[in-house]
Amino acid sequence: MNTATPAYEQLTSTWTRLHHLEHLQSIASWDHAANMPPKGNEARASAMAEMAALLHRMRTDPAMGSGLQRAEQEPLDDLQRANLREMQRQWQAATALPEALVQQQQMAASRCEHAWREQRPANDWAGFVSNLKPVLALARQEAALLSEKTGARKYDALMDRFEPGMTCAKVDRVFGDVRQWLPGLIQQVLAKQAQETVQLPVGPFAQARQRALCEQVVRLLGFDFEAGRLDVSTHPFCGGVPEDVRLTTRFRDDEFLTGLMGTIHETGHGRYEQNLPRALLGQPVAQARSMALHESQSLSFEMQLGSHPGFVARLAPLVTQAFGEQPAFAAQNLHRLITRVKPGFIRVDADEVTYPAHVILRYEIERPLIEGEIEPEDVPALWDAKMMELLGVDTRGNFKDGPMQDVHWPAGMFGYFPCYSLGAMYAAQWFATMRRAMPDLDARICSGDLAPVFGWLNDNIWSQASRWPTDELAQRASGEPLNAAHFKAHLEARYLG
Amino acid sequence: MNTATPAYEQLTSTWTRLHHLEHLQSIASWDHAANMPPKGNEARASAMAEMAALLHRMRTDPAMGSGLQRAEQEPLDDLQRANLREMQRQWQAATALPEALVQQQQMAASRCEHAWREQRPANDWAGFVSNLKPVLALARQEAALLSEKTGARKYDALMDRFEPGMTCAKVDRVFGDVRQWLPGLIQQVLAKQAQETVQLPVGPFAQARQRALCEQVVRLLGFDFEAGRLDVSTHPFCGGVPEDVRLTTRFRDDEFLTGLMGTIHETGHGRYEQNLPRALLGQPVAQARSMALHESQSLSFEMQLGSHPGFVARLAPLVTQAFGEQPAFAAQNLHRLITRVKPGFIRVDADEVTYPAHVILRYEIERPLIEGEIEPEDVPALWDAKMMELLGVDTRGNFKDGPMQDVHWPAGMFGYFPCYSLGAMYAAQWFATMRRAMPDLDARICSGDLAPVFGWLNDNIWSQASRWPTDELAQRASGEPLNAAHFKAHLEARYLG
Repeated sequence: MNTATPAYEQLTSTWTRLHHLEHLQSIASWDHAANMPPKGNEARASAMAEMAALLHRMRTDPAMGSGLQRAEQEPLDDLQRANLREMQRQWQAATALPEALVQQQQMAASRCEHAWREQRPANDWAGFVSNLKPVLALARQEAALLSEKTGARKYDALMDRFEPGMTCAKVDRVFGDVRQWLPGLIQQVLAKQAQETVQLPVGPFAQARQRALCEQVVRLLGFDFEAGRLDVSTHPFCGGVPEDVRLTTRFRDDEFLTGLMGTIHETGHGRYEQNLPRALLGQPVAQARSMALHESQSLSFEMQLGSHPGFVARLAPLVTQAFGEQPAFAAQNLHRLITRVKPGFIRVDADEVTYPAHVILRYEIERPLIEGEIEPEDVPALWDAKMMELLGVDTRGNFKDGPMQDVHWPAGMFGYFPCYSLGAMYAAQWFATMRRAMPDLDARICSGDLAPVFGWLNDNIWSQASRWPTDELAQRASGEPLNAAHFKAHLEARYLG
Repeated sequence: MNTATPAYEQLTSTWTRLHHLEHLQSIASWDHAANMPPKGNEARASAMAEMAALLHRMRTDPAMGSGLQRAEQEPLDDLQRANLREMQRQWQAATALPEALVQQQQMAASRCEHAWREQRPANDWAGFVSNLKPVLALARQEAALLSEKTGARKYDALMDRFEPGMTCAKVDRVFGDVRQWLPGLIQQVLAKQAQETVQLPVGPFAQARQRALCEQVVRLLGFDFEAGRLDVSTHPFCGGVPEDVRLTTRFRDDEFLTGLMGTIHETGHGRYEQNLPRALLGQPVAQARSMALHESQSLSFEMQLGSHPGFVARLAPLVTQAFGEQPAFAAQNLHRLITRVKPGFIRVDADEVTYPAHVILRYEIERPLIEGEIEPEDVPALWDAKMMELLGVDTRGNFKDGPMQDVHWPAGMFGYFPCYSLGAMYAAQWFATMRRAMPDLDARICSGDLAPVFGWLNDNIWSQASRWPTDELAQRASGEPLNAAHFKAHLEARYLG
């Protein structure tokens, strides 16, 4: 222990302990999704709740609060000071809410989410609203409490849990801009693609072969299988711990592109985690920066790189090798399939061009919901109008594929949705920066050389972890904070170019 | 909380918390063996050590000691009193040793085991002994400390960790008897089997088919796949938690019987765990009774039932279905293969008849080792003499397949070996009891009706868990404490009948 920084050293060792215990929680959580038989559920839930309570006690231990104050006065270097800043952020988040509120939230969300699993297929909006109301009321309480403490706007306070430093003011500016040009762009893309012929792949596609193909592609994308795995779960995710990253995907017999592109998406999350600074693992400064930054990695992999014509040309022979010759597997046709644009009801099935419309719509509804300007009863009419306006699709009366489609609201995760599109925008910004620094980038991707992409991401994003606030990270990486113009330019180049 | 038993209720809730946290430890431990990529090792080891330290602090909390004393005075029913007895036993075990000794033991064992993985294949006895000495010295210290506290003989004190209530006096009586008749019996069996012709199966045996066959057999044996799994690991084991039992096995391309019989073995452990009393899970009284009792279940499945000619006749068509027709798969031939006796060097590869010789030999060496009558340098000569005497095999100079073959000594697990053979003896005793109660038992097994076996084991062993001390459990189940005569009768009936 450094004798000049005893409080700071004490804090780092507490976070190391948290890291160790969270390791077990992460692995058990992955196991829950990838392995656990159904009758194990109750015991697992009790075990996870016990650990959550234990971690909460550690994270809110009053000794930590005084330690943080003492550490402020100690002679720390820049990296230590960044770590302390992140510790303080985590401490504030952990201690911001009375435990009773957190427990009420968990109960209300659990009840709402549980009922939602039946109500959604039954299109039972009225039943859903009766459970959503208490979830929303508690989220509003949380927002009000946080807002009082920090002075932040209520919705900002909730968004801050996922995207530190992000505000409605910034989101409004960015999304307001996108909402101006997006509907027109979608129409142009649809008109252009209507001229193209696309061959559809013919299934079935044996799952064992899909799995082998995915493993090959994940390897090609630099994921270290000595420090992680790829398995199957109902909803794909990237879990585990930085030292042992667990990717999951899913397969259907009649279609392979969803599973493949989903796997590429999760690989982006996985490489971020695998390349966080090793020596500091466990410390807040070594954690991934934010959800939008995380999404910027998965979308760098899935959209910027994975849907790049040069990369798709590399995929094509692997696909043929996996499933045999088909006209659909020609590189150009495969690229058309992967970049097909089609306005639809469901966010998670949306293509890269229409996806922001789904997110903007949700943001424009959940912000006033949280701030008390509208009530759940007002949601369907707003939803229908915005879906028609942004995507030209008619959702009237179709609640299950409308405002009931996502788990976020029943789970109380208000303020999360913007991260998805902010991530897509950051990804476009990273690739625009790479192209400025390396004018031959596209040629190198076409030649199969992915090292420049991985090197840039590693130097500018992965290895930087939480060293800088997000705006400063973006500034250092790309010379400017978030700028959605790069996203627009990317869509125009790829879809209208 | 019952107001008349506040101390007892407090203790039960502490054990429930331990159960929840141990759940995460068990799943992570299974994951370590079944899934974990190599680079995850260091982080996992740190996480497991953190949890072990946390659980140790909970198990040795002084408040628990005073709670146990207060609970003694409370009005408890018989089941609660049995639970309190087991709590006291666990408390005594957890607090018996100074933490410094436990840490020294872990370090010495870890060093010895780590070096052993290289020294064993190199047949490096001298190198091994230099690491084993500190492990042994610490085990002797532990034995002396425990012996002072409880008045038990030193080796008894170590054995008690695995087999509560077992003593050298009992083991000497039982093993002393076996060692009289075993060498002669082995010779008789070898002479008889020399007259029989056996057809060998012809490989390779596709692992996917072995796996499907094993799953079918595990299901046939009543294992609940809704509350457990079967996976692959280097060393087969039964892990997880009673609510979610994780069996593992291993497969070789050139041979399928080892994997199949090993799977049946683990299924016995698994059904014990799956059928411990649900309402009390987490409480010490609901835990499996002991290692010998656990082994009595795996061996009831593998040897008593799994190697029964009636059960093998059911296996035969499944084997044919899995791998195609072969003369070796005829029921009678398959039974001969499964019951083939052959004296050899390696305990874990030994058949049911020669296995006790391996255990008796180890017991006769580790008891005087612990009690300071001999030193590690004396082991090889004793080993060679006893192997020749009991099994007629020459082990001189072959340390790697002799005293270096097991992980138990490098890991400091002195006192464990007897449980294996005690388990085989208990298993024979259970089946002898079943046959007295159900004279048509063998006919029912031959007709494919396994329900009477499972029903008896459930009523007498599984559901009883740790309600009674082992001798009383045996007395209640079979009308007598451990009686090795049943084991002898079983071997004679099966191998000489």
